[in-house]
Amino acid sequence: MKKFLAEFIGTFWLVLGGCGSAVLAAAFPELGIGLLGVALAFGLTVLTIAYGLGHISGAHLNPAVSIGLWMGGRFGVRDLFPYIIAQILGGLVAAGILYVIATGNGSEIGNFAANGYGEHSPGGYSMGAALLTEVVMTFMFLIIILGVTDKRAPSGFAGMAIGLALTLIHLISIPVTNTSVNPARSISQAIFVGDWALQQLWLFIAAPVAGAILAGIVYRFFQEKETTSAPYQ
Amino acid sequence: MKKFLAEFIGTFWLVLGGCGSAVLAAAFPELGIGLLGVALAFGLTVLTIAYGLGHISGAHLNPAVSIGLWMGGRFGVRDLFPYIIAQILGGLVAAGILYVIATGNGSEIGNFAANGYGEHSPGGYSMGAALLTEVVMTFMFLIIILGVTDKRAPSGFAGMAIGLALTLIHLISIPVTNTSVNPARSISQAIFVGDWALQQLWLFIAAPVAGAILAGIVYRFFQEKETTSAPYQ
Amino acid sequence: MKKFLAEFIGTFWLVLGGCGSAVLAAAFPELGIGLLGVALAFGLTVLTIAYGLGHISGAHLNPAVSIGLWMGGRFGVRDLFPYIIAQILGGLVAAGILYVIATGNGSEIGNFAANGYGEHSPGGYSMGAALLTEVVMTFMFLIIILGVTDKRAPSGFAGMAIGLALTLIHLISIPVTNTSVNPARSISQAIFVGDWALQQLWLFIAAPVAGAILAGIVYRFFQEKETTSAPYQ
Amino acid sequence: MKKFLAEFIGTFWLVLGGCGSAVLAAAFPELGIGLLGVALAFGLTVLTIAYGLGHISGAHLNPAVSIGLWMGGRFGVRDLFPYIIAQILGGLVAAGILYVIATGNGSEIGNFAANGYGEHSPGGYSMGAALLTEVVMTFMFLIIILGVTDKRAPSGFAGMAIGLALTLIHLISIPVTNTSVNPARSISQAIFVGDWALQQLWLFIAAPVAGAILAGIVYRFFQEKETTSAPYQ
Repeated sequence: MKKFLAEFIGTFWLVLGGCGSAVLAAAFPELGIGLLGVALAFGLTVLTIAYGLGHISGAHLNPAVSIGLWMGGRFGVRDLFPYIIAQILGGLVAAGILYVIATGNGSEIGNFAANGYGEHSPGGYSMGAALLTEVVMTFMFLIIILGVTDKRAPSGFAGMAIGLALTLIHLISIPVTNTSVNPARSISQAIFVGDWALQQLWLFIAAPVAGAILAGIVYRFFQEKETTSAPYQ
Repeated sequence: MKKFLAEFIGTFWLVLGGCGSAVLAAAFPELGIGLLGVALAFGLTVLTIAYGLGHISGAHLNPAVSIGLWMGGRFGVRDLFPYIIAQILGGLVAAGILYVIATGNGSEIGNFAANGYGEHSPGGYSMGAALLTEVVMTFMFLIIILGVTDKRAPSGFAGMAIGLALTLIHLISIPVTNTSVNPARSISQAIFVGDWALQQLWLFIAAPVAGAILAGIVYRFFQEKETTSAPYQ
Repeated sequence: MKKFLAEFIGTFWLVLGGCGSAVLAAAFPELGIGLLGVALAFGLTVLTIAYGLGHISGAHLNPAVSIGLWMGGRFGVRDLFPYIIAQILGGLVAAGILYVIATGNGSEIGNFAANGYGEHSPGGYSMGAALLTEVVMTFMFLIIILGVTDKRAPSGFAGMAIGLALTLIHLISIPVTNTSVNPARSISQAIFVGDWALQQLWLFIAAPVAGAILAGIVYRFFQEKETTSAPYQ
Repeated sequence: MKKFLAEFIGTFWLVLGGCGSAVLAAAFPELGIGLLGVALAFGLTVLTIAYGLGHISGAHLNPAVSIGLWMGGRFGVRDLFPYIIAQILGGLVAAGILYVIATGNGSEIGNFAANGYGEHSPGGYSMGAALLTEVVMTFMFLIIILGVTDKRAPSGFAGMAIGLALTLIHLISIPVTNTSVNPARSISQAIFVGDWALQQLWLFIAAPVAGAILAGIVYRFFQEKETTSAPYQ
């Protein structure tokens, strides 16, 4: 139970912090934090929960991460579905609270940081570009996650590297899809926006999962019989 | 005595650095640091003092943090009041020095980074939205603080994670309340602004304390008889 | 084979993340990440790969780094050419994918984050200024890399310091040359831009390599018979 | 000799990176890094050198830091003058190289990131406000430096905390004095600007040194017979 609550709280924080900073602060007149601030916020939700609750649940906070870790042989199938459900619920509760706060000055929620492609891509990128972006970004996210939690990586730095990897991914790809790489985050916003966001939701479930599975397979190659070279040092 | 002086100096730094960056640098013409820079400044005050004086006093720098740690069973009631008094005094001295500097080019202090809701919310958010925001933000701040200082979390990274958690909280919530999550920070600015800031001060004492108490209670659940799962690795 | 694949993936990430953020997000209307965001993105590609794949290949991700480490006595000549080839290939594949994404909203690639001097310098800096900048920046990059991977430096922090060193280098020098300090990154973009970018490419190979060789020689002096002074502490 | 060369290279990097980012990149049209980017650059020069060359010389990079460490009983008087001379020389060479680069597109150096007060303060702050700011900022810088290098602080994090402390100090005080807290940095720029910068230089030597001496005295109190309380954990 503890680990499911930790995933619930952690994914709650990811959506509230990441989407919240986008909805409330990105375009604040003159002093707004912009895409850079939103990218930092998403990354820091993961960094803070990785150090804060990682010892409870591993701080996946993302169905694609859980699936990628399972493909990479790091996570048992037994907990896979409960984790994913806890993540989706955490995201939904966060979206609900964000809805109450964001409408608390009389404004409407607009696109509410939902993910989209084509005419709903922030920069007008096509479905093909969006699909490619989400697959590649999630692939690299999982390669990094699998790498930094490898026994051979320096201990303790995993939370920092994973959080900043998510910041980096947002620095690159917000203009293309508003950046998902996380079905729980996409579902939570799409349900409140409805309409086009629900119609396009399939891509933000399928692409991250595909990228994560691919990374799980590739990283297995790096784990085979160890022959370290360590050219630094 | 050493630990009270450390809390005094630390909270002095939090208010001088956080509110100082907001008052002096946020809206500097063309090159200003904006809300992103202010969010970073608040977080770095905590990060630097956590590493610099954490070994003396634990670097709470915030009455809500002291209360939350006490509720979570990490801090004795004996030191609770002296800590809170040292924190409030440190904040007040910082506000005084900031007053002297900020008026040193002939300008007036304006809202002086005071916290507010309704018409005194930077983005015009209602009292309800402000209350919800401050409770949730302080709740998550304390969950992270209690988590990263848990014996099971990687040692040494607590100061980084706590500081960056405060940065994240500001990235989300400055538009709503100017972000408090810290009664000592709110008191110091309200006293210099007077008037509406003093009238609204109750919320920035009550909400952070409520959020912190709630987190102390919730985290106790995570501490019960340890059954680690550690799905990463 | 593992280490060459790691260098391939890592340099792929450096070019996709660094140049990708520049092409896709730097000038996004009103909310763009600017040069600060691009500088952060370049640094975070290195930070994330250093922690994620550093235990496989050392995470050079840059022919000048491999050459500098070889000059500093840290890297065997046997792997030098395979590393450089893997890095250049990784950069090229990233540029190809970035090309597909960036043109996915109907825009053209423009200068595609290619490096340049004279009229192709972002700020109009002369060839001499560009040459001096690239030599000095790569020199300092390698001094830092050789220093943080020295046995006497605190273990585990190398990835963070090297990544943030690359961020710093971009904060200084994007206006001068768009910042190279990495022939693999320059080659990948020049091939897609062609024309002037290919004509000016020599500088972004020669200058980084010269700076790296110089650093390898200078750092040898610091490694001679150890007589630590450690004035801090 | 090694440690003097390390201080020379390190202070060279501080001035080239910090003042360089200010002169070359802060006000770059539309994409400029602003005061936030400059604050980050100054901090990252110290962070990268602290990890890169800290094991050689301790990475003071600042006469006020050397003096404060000496007052705090951490640094012998024997090396004090050679360190200060190496720091000043490193800063001067950096200013020279920055001069060559910055004028490489035909522009003039303007105020060249020199420190000033009154009409030469970026925000028009009086001499009194400037003096107070520089004393307080350097005092807190040294409290943090003495704290994070205390035996009781978590090992390895000192370089990060000290670097980010310098970032924080710049986030607060660039509008007041352009931020010195470092006589070597002020001297290097004042010599190239001449005139008013040389006339006001006394403040940027006297105030940082005064703040550092004060911190050395105050921190001695924290070092007396240890009675840790460690309320976190």
